Amino acid sequence: MTTLQQLPNFKFHGVPFTEVAIQDSFWTARIKATQQSTITACLAQCEQTGRISNFAKSANLMEGDFEGIFYNDSDVYKVLEGIAYSLMIEPDALMEAQADQIIDLIVAAQQEDGYLQTFFTLAEPQNKWKDMNKHEDYCAGHMFEAAIAYKQATGKRKLLDAAIKLADLIDSLFGPSKRHWVAGHQEIELALVKLFLETGEERYWKLSYWMLEERGHGHGIGYSWVREGWGAAYSQDDVPVRDITKATGHAVRAMYMYAGMADIAAISGDQGYIDALDRVWSNIVHKNMYITGGIGPSRHNEGFTADYDLPNDSAYCETCASIGMVLWNHRMNLLHGDSKYADIVERAMYNGSIAGVSLSGDKFFYVNPLESDGTHHRVPWYDCSCCPTQIARFIPSIGGYVYATRGNEIIVNQFVEGAGRLSLKAGDITLRQVTEYPWNGRITLRVEEGEAGEYGIQLRIPSWCKSYRLAVGEQEIADAQTDKGYVRLQRTWKPGDEITLELTMQVERVYSHPLVLANEGKVALQRGPLVYCMEEIDNAKYDVLNVTAATRFRTVYEPELLQGVIAVYAEEPSGDQRFKAIPYYAWDNRAAGQMKVWLPEQRDESRLYRS
Amino acid sequence: MTTLQQLPNFKFHGVPFTEVAIQDSFWTARIKATQQSTITACLAQCEQTGRISNFAKSANLMEGDFEGIFYNDSDVYKVLEGIAYSLMIEPDALMEAQADQIIDLIVAAQQEDGYLQTFFTLAEPQNKWKDMNKHEDYCAGHMFEAAIAYKQATGKRKLLDAAIKLADLIDSLFGPSKRHWVAGHQEIELALVKLFLETGEERYWKLSYWMLEERGHGHGIGYSWVREGWGAAYSQDDVPVRDITKATGHAVRAMYMYAGMADIAAISGDQGYIDALDRVWSNIVHKNMYITGGIGPSRHNEGFTADYDLPNDSAYCETCASIGMVLWNHRMNLLHGDSKYADIVERAMYNGSIAGVSLSGDKFFYVNPLESDGTHHRVPWYDCSCCPTQIARFIPSIGGYVYATRGNEIIVNQFVEGAGRLSLKAGDITLRQVTEYPWNGRITLRVEEGEAGEYGIQLRIPSWCKSYRLAVGEQEIADAQTDKGYVRLQRTWKPGDEITLELTMQVERVYSHPLVLANEGKVALQRGPLVYCMEEIDNAKYDVLNVTAATRFRTVYEPELLQGVIAVYAEEPSGDQRFKAIPYYAWDNRAAGQMKVWLPEQRDESRLYRS
Repeated sequence: MTTLQQLPNFKFHGVPFTEVAIQDSFWTARIKATQQSTITACLAQCEQTGRISNFAKSANLMEGDFEGIFYNDSDVYKVLEGIAYSLMIEPDALMEAQADQIIDLIVAAQQEDGYLQTFFTLAEPQNKWKDMNKHEDYCAGHMFEAAIAYKQATGKRKLLDAAIKLADLIDSLFGPSKRHWVAGHQEIELALVKLFLETGEERYWKLSYWMLEERGHGHGIGYSWVREGWGAAYSQDDVPVRDITKATGHAVRAMYMYAGMADIAAISGDQGYIDALDRVWSNIVHKNMYITGGIGPSRHNEGFTADYDLPNDSAYCETCASIGMVLWNHRMNLLHGDSKYADIVERAMYNGSIAGVSLSGDKFFYVNPLESDGTHHRVPWYDCSCCPTQIARFIPSIGGYVYATRGNEIIVNQFVEGAGRLSLKAGDITLRQVTEYPWNGRITLRVEEGEAGEYGIQLRIPSWCKSYRLAVGEQEIADAQTDKGYVRLQRTWKPGDEITLELTMQVERVYSHPLVLANEGKVALQRGPLVYCMEEIDNAKYDVLNVTAATRFRTVYEPELLQGVIAVYAEEPSGDQRFKAIPYYAWDNRAAGQMKVWLPEQRDESRLYRS
Repeated sequence: MTTLQQLPNFKFHGVPFTEVAIQDSFWTARIKATQQSTITACLAQCEQTGRISNFAKSANLMEGDFEGIFYNDSDVYKVLEGIAYSLMIEPDALMEAQADQIIDLIVAAQQEDGYLQTFFTLAEPQNKWKDMNKHEDYCAGHMFEAAIAYKQATGKRKLLDAAIKLADLIDSLFGPSKRHWVAGHQEIELALVKLFLETGEERYWKLSYWMLEERGHGHGIGYSWVREGWGAAYSQDDVPVRDITKATGHAVRAMYMYAGMADIAAISGDQGYIDALDRVWSNIVHKNMYITGGIGPSRHNEGFTADYDLPNDSAYCETCASIGMVLWNHRMNLLHGDSKYADIVERAMYNGSIAGVSLSGDKFFYVNPLESDGTHHRVPWYDCSCCPTQIARFIPSIGGYVYATRGNEIIVNQFVEGAGRLSLKAGDITLRQVTEYPWNGRITLRVEEGEAGEYGIQLRIPSWCKSYRLAVGEQEIADAQTDKGYVRLQRTWKPGDEITLELTMQVERVYSHPLVLANEGKVALQRGPLVYCMEEIDNAKYDVLNVTAATRFRTVYEPELLQGVIAVYAEEPSGDQRFKAIPYYAWDNRAAGQMKVWLPEQRDESRLYRS
């Protein structure tokens, strides 16, 4: 059976996270926190807020009205998906039993015809499929994803069968010569592709393709924002998807849609989709993305505004949107085989995405500004809790972004200590990474298992990296080929062979495009993939919180700070201590206080030249 | 007896190179080449060109006319000075015997009254002390320096006694209520201070002080350039030295004079001198210095022109002027105790200065452009051979720039593997550096010998370094004091204690001040202290020799290349190989061809922001 990693028009094949053992300190800590805290917290919240009992009520297993918001079912699905990923990493009988119970309720809540959305079943049965913005498709998509993941993790197909029944219902209602349908909140598109890959049923991806093609022709019905005067662009329903030139509207919807488009392009080879994705990618990455990989500056539409409008204190940057950037850019990387997309995966992964969760794993940001007056804090839950449950399913799947393959090529996209089992034409290979990344740019790659054979190993040289060194064994490499941001080593490899890649990692000053008015005269600090910020708790004692041309940075590994981070101390050669900075992802884990990513820079023309 | 390192108004005391054992690969190779090749070559050339026989002729030990240029004696003195330094590093009976023979000739050539300049003795005895630009004082200065060095190296004071006799002659002729004298080519000022330090005779430094004060009052006589219309500024005789605001005229004369002024300031405490030096330092470093530490763009006056006039292909940048920058900035560092001067010492040391000599040690640049059409090459000798002989005396003394002390403080100014014997109030300490500098920014400093005691260790954080890490033993240092560019560790140290300093070393893009028109749209590459250049021999195969915003750099240690260097390969993420660069100091050691330091940079606005 085909997997998402092996769609015909993807240049690279992804390597699922189940083939990647993460044995580092950075991600292991995040995964443990997700397993031990995030998932438990999300389950408890789903319980307490009626999200789970809504299923029981729909199944007539208990009495009562629908509780909460109409799309709340999706949160339960997303936690289930996270549980499935977690079980693939580490079996947990109790967690699995809890999931089984919830799945029983979900399946019991499904109606005879396959319909499943507890809000409509309980509150407005007469209004099913009438308003395209009531997230019936969105919830279905998340249900498909959870069902597939749970089947893959446990072999149990109860939820998957229910998913197929729901998908078939949708397929029976909508499509060519049936009803029009334009998903108000995209998500089902990529989920239908997964369902195709899981079941082999071609009609699922074709339905997804049709749904994407439905957009931009005025078929959308019931969109509240259209009534309110915002226009169809809010939901990317203003132009046909193949005519997209720039990012508009709600950021998470856009991300899920682009991810779905990339999947469909990978199956169909539709060049119109590829061209549209390339255009909108450039528009987002060059003109509408924060340094954190965050997108969507506006609280108003939870999304995009105008090019270069990237305010810091009011930055919306929904956690789900950053994770959406990972989902989409991962697929773009597979589609084009170009490391520039993996660069964005890295940026969003290490910054905008994981900032969404506390180090303890049980508090969450929905909104991720780049500057705070001290009043913005993570909380245990939201009425609209898409972000916490997104974290629950995202972090355990992180290993899926590490490798890709292509015929007889291994592609190393991310640097994470651990081992990857990689299938090449030349045979199966186990490749081990030894690295302290993201704290240190030195990476040793060792061929551990597999027959000796000739194949290529491509290493992403991250866009943040300005200079690097590469060696195979003791031999320094001068003449390696570079292609699309990967440096490529082709030779006959055998177990024991070692590659050393040293990415010089220094505290870099990053400047904004001059049209980003919010950052005029400002600089941000980045070290390796990590964007840094200043928090008040570290800096109350310093008088001056800016950067000059002469400022230099002392990096200090502080094992007791924020579960162990490299802190950055800024100092003047004169002796003035300017400030201490910490990785952005770790902010708001101590006392409340101000935070800033972009810092004023005092320019001194006389220092510009050699000094 | 006071040494130059211990003048009362120097903030730091220098540590002479005799207390510093260099055991690295970089400088050791240069010192060996100087000992085995440069000195021998210079001696042979002095022999062949009549420079040595001019002394024999003056002493009536052989017949014949004066040969060469009127100031050629100075070259012999400078080689002798180099021999003395070399002997201090490593005894060499043959070399010492050769030196003794030459010294015998010199002393024999000295006239009864102490006068010594073979040109006047042989060719124009009637014209002694008539033209202030005939370098009688300049040659005397170099003779003093050689004599002092040779006495220190061998204990033999024959040349020193002759030097004292010559100095006394000069002191008898010139001074308050005697004749005016304005040295046309400064040098004697700093040499007289050395003579004071060697002999304890106060009148030598007072003569030096008087000579500096003579300048800028119209006392100069015979300057050919004044007759030719260039004005007294050529020789820095246009304003009194304490009124200097900017660099003018011949660069080497300026450097020697500023060095002498710094010495006099260090003795006298004359604030007018200090203020003048500070002004002219800023003017030179910010507006009149090349990235190589070279100065003096113009062949016309061998010196300074207008601020920001720094052409590359026609850059004059005399080797002696770069070495002069080392001499002067070393004294500025001692005077002010500020690392920004040691930064310039480093820049000039590793780039503009040692570019003056071939790796083989026997070919020399007088002129050091930053761009060549392939016709500029080192040659074995020049009619005016100040630069080869400058190299001969400069390189063996390099250890003198590594350390300084101040009471109970050790100052580490340069990073060179080896050991320093340092006298503190707390006692004598041996400090060992283990490092691969300048190829690698990791430096381990180990307290090797000495009683346990409380003292401070100050480490220069080079201006090129943007971020660094510091640890004492296993303990990372977050809160070290920084002062004047030094990070300071104060504690009770004992033998075995280790400091680790990791200066992150990456290939940096350096941009010129926008007013430097020659570098508009261009970028230079620097890694650690080393400026890089492109040579044709490495780059004929590449189509495009420029840099884009996306260009990244692969560093490769190539042991067979240019006696072992880290080469820099520039490549685009797309795969285009742009060029290969080598350290500037090592250019023109292979096939003739074009060379460039400043490379065109293709700007791409869309890449400016995060990518």
